[in-house]
Amino acid sequence: MEIKTYKSDFTYSYTLGAFPTIELLRHKNEYVIKVLIHSTFKNEEVLNEIKSLVGPNKIEYSDKLISKLSDKENVYVIGIFNKYDSNLDPNKDHLVLWNPSNMGNLGTILRSSLGFGIKDVAIIKPGVDYFNPKAIRASMGSMFSMNIKFFDTLEDYTESFKEHKQYKFMLQAKKSLRDAEFNDKHISLVFGNEATGIDPKYLDEDALIIRHSDAIDSLNVTNAVSIALYEYHEKKNK
Amino acid sequence: MEIKTYKSDFTYSYTLGAFPTIELLRHKNEYVIKVLIHSTFKNEEVLNEIKSLVGPNKIEYSDKLISKLSDKENVYVIGIFNKYDSNLDPNKDHLVLWNPSNMGNLGTILRSSLGFGIKDVAIIKPGVDYFNPKAIRASMGSMFSMNIKFFDTLEDYTESFKEHKQYKFMLQAKKSLRDAEFNDKHISLVFGNEATGIDPKYLDEDALIIRHSDAIDSLNVTNAVSIALYEYHEKKNK
Repeated sequence: MEIKTYKSDFTYSYTLGAFPTIELLRHKNEYVIKVLIHSTFKNEEVLNEIKSLVGPNKIEYSDKLISKLSDKENVYVIGIFNKYDSNLDPNKDHLVLWNPSNMGNLGTILRSSLGFGIKDVAIIKPGVDYFNPKAIRASMGSMFSMNIKFFDTLEDYTESFKEHKQYKFMLQAKKSLRDAEFNDKHISLVFGNEATGIDPKYLDEDALIIRHSDAIDSLNVTNAVSIALYEYHEKKNK
Repeated sequence: MEIKTYKSDFTYSYTLGAFPTIELLRHKNEYVIKVLIHSTFKNEEVLNEIKSLVGPNKIEYSDKLISKLSDKENVYVIGIFNKYDSNLDPNKDHLVLWNPSNMGNLGTILRSSLGFGIKDVAIIKPGVDYFNPKAIRASMGSMFSMNIKFFDTLEDYTESFKEHKQYKFMLQAKKSLRDAEFNDKHISLVFGNEATGIDPKYLDEDALIIRHSDAIDSLNVTNAVSIALYEYHEKKNK
């Protein structure tokens, strides 16, 4: 099997760097094809952890392949794995991202989401490929302990999770995030695309806005999602 | 005067795109050298706004220069300006960024800071050049209505603003951001570099942490700053 630079129609992808690779091995070990180690990598502690997580027959030293896959970045460890499907847990709260369009932003959002206790993420199509190595890297491997699933439309998602109360973040909303109680049995925090937001036709009485001064038009979407997740986490853990 | 692709030792810089250019013209008009318009740019509303803000002798049509300065991005308006110094307002609250190392992150943080009501930003050296067109673009021009100033060390900043109560964000802090009251006369929110944070020797009883699960090591610094600014803004405006 010849490993090539990632394209989204591949059945495999890979982590760039030791940190996300260890997350991969810890949480999705059964999908690992092999781990590439650079001959100059001498961090014994990390090497031992990798060896304790994956059998020796799955470790390969190949400076050439690492160089090919990692482009111009300084990468010494790569984990190659088969892509897998996930299902969202119907008994957990969800984050819903409508057409996230930037891989770095998506990865950063996943990291915040895991940190604030939401492991189940719906992506409404279109949306960037969360298995792209750039998204994995920005998530610092967080995605391997999460469930991420694509849905064709918000209606499809809503149909699948009727018991989840949806809080849509919209500039047109009247209610402040600060005033949300988040005491429903199941919750979905729903965010639109950075450029377009959520279509105003979806506005409802539960929609929320993050108050800020009118000196700016809107917050960066990654920051907005993180702020909402923080407020959610504080209310759930008070 | 021949305008070249930006380097940080230049005495001038430039905005890429109509939105940040209009912010430049609105807030720092006196430093504008000229505004470049692409011959294919036909948005009359934006053109009229630009013309109402800057005299016709400062408008220049030059597709070639726009192409040179904007690299491969789709840019139709560029505002060239002389770089200027700012001083922080001693009667306002401050954001203090210690060695911000990424221009996109810095710009995004500036946008959040303006949105949450802090216009005065100290950067502790080293730190990226906030006049770099990439930082300006990520800030969406927010920086033109803010005061940004470099300090050699945190001690220098502290010496200059002794009446500001400093809240340092540190992973070693015991007190939660949520429990901060922010009712001091003057406040400084202080953040470290993404990779290194603030040296633990600076830990004091006012230091704050943003609570999150141990599933992640830390939040992305841009998100952390935005969350702190949100909490600050909510407490100041409750």
